Amino acid sequence: MSAEIQNRLTALGITLPQLAAPLANYVPFTISGNTLYISGQLPSKDGQVMKGLLGDNTSVEQGQEAARLCAINIIAQASAALGGDLGRVVRCLRLGGFVASTQSFFDQPKVINGASDLIVAVFADAGKHARAAVGVSALPLGAAVEVDAIFEIK
Amino acid sequence: MSAEIQNRLTALGITLPQLAAPLANYVPFTISGNTLYISGQLPSKDGQVMKGLLGDNTSVEQGQEAARLCAINIIAQASAALGGDLGRVVRCLRLGGFVASTQSFFDQPKVINGASDLIVAVFADAGKHARAAVGVSALPLGAAVEVDAIFEIK
Amino acid sequence: MSAEIQNRLTALGITLPQLAAPLANYVPFTISGNTLYISGQLPSKDGQVMKGLLGDNTSVEQGQEAARLCAINIIAQASAALGGDLGRVVRCLRLGGFVASTQSFFDQPKVINGASDLIVAVFADAGKHARAAVGVSALPLGAAVEVDAIFEIK
Repeated sequence: MSAEIQNRLTALGITLPQLAAPLANYVPFTISGNTLYISGQLPSKDGQVMKGLLGDNTSVEQGQEAARLCAINIIAQASAALGGDLGRVVRCLRLGGFVASTQSFFDQPKVINGASDLIVAVFADAGKHARAAVGVSALPLGAAVEVDAIFEIK
Repeated sequence: MSAEIQNRLTALGITLPQLAAPLANYVPFTISGNTLYISGQLPSKDGQVMKGLLGDNTSVEQGQEAARLCAINIIAQASAALGGDLGRVVRCLRLGGFVASTQSFFDQPKVINGASDLIVAVFADAGKHARAAVGVSALPLGAAVEVDAIFEIK
Repeated sequence: MSAEIQNRLTALGITLPQLAAPLANYVPFTISGNTLYISGQLPSKDGQVMKGLLGDNTSVEQGQEAARLCAINIIAQASAALGGDLGRVVRCLRLGGFVASTQSFFDQPKVINGASDLIVAVFADAGKHARAAVGVSALPLGAAVEVDAIFEIK
């Protein structure tokens, strides 16, 4: 990992988790040439998933924290994909943000900013990504947010 | 921009809007090699977003118009990404279409045709794209439709 | 098609369907360099779509069968894209799994395993993919599941 990125993670108080591989016929990431695809990550921390439904039992601030946890897990998966060397990230190309939402909750962008802000805090300009943010009816394990990602790597 | 594409836009009565950059840590587009990723675009026009929920307060025809506005914004972002030269578009590879839908609205393909038809009207065969169309519970700002895109460029 | 992949399809009792092209301005697949994008596929078989809403009128097992049908159609589209030679598949890079879900259904991963398991049964290690699985409010034609895909090809 480049020292600069590690320094930023340290300054943010983030220790990348060791994530278990999915118990299924899919994998946390795939690489094709210079493109790294990261599977949808849930807002899990210490084995607990942040559950919730925006517009009902979950505030925008809680949703942002959930999105931030998704982004930490994305970075952890990217690190695993790159043998621990996050300095190989050229650019975060795209985040796909899914927010568990009632029919009357319309602040998905604010929620997913929790992920976008962290990616840019860690990767600086290389973290600036295209994005889609949508409200979905439900997410795995009752999660409030799910985020997937595509990176350009070297 | 290639004259041919400009002529088609003119014939369709479309003036590409000047879009503001998002006030956040994401960007309207990223480029990796020959691939251009466009962020999810809302059906905005003159600062107003077409709101709605298909199956409830919004007709298929209104949804199609919303999807068409999303596609105009996609083309405007592609133009910005390519320094105004839409002749650099080799192919529209994929559209992702999200339609704010009740549980009993199943005409997402008809709605997203509003975007697909415009992309092909502007780019002709180079506009023929792969696509996914799904119904979501809610979209940013109460939008009826959101569409993102991937292009091959030269 | 490589003999090995055909043998696995035969052992699974799967005959790839001849799929009609969409009656619209989009196409079932696009290719950019080594990347193949497959449009969202519905759980259709013999002209019938498996309808349903998970958490309401459809069981996890029925959802898995629907996801498996989506994956069969993905493979059929990939075969068409590759002139019948599925041996040109280098890797399934990503599946996007959309499950029609009530607000209280959280087993999207189990449902989409129906697609993931089939892709790996057919392509072996080359079938191991990144994935996102989310619950949506409704899908085209009332389908229970929709899955799209990205492949690396040679």
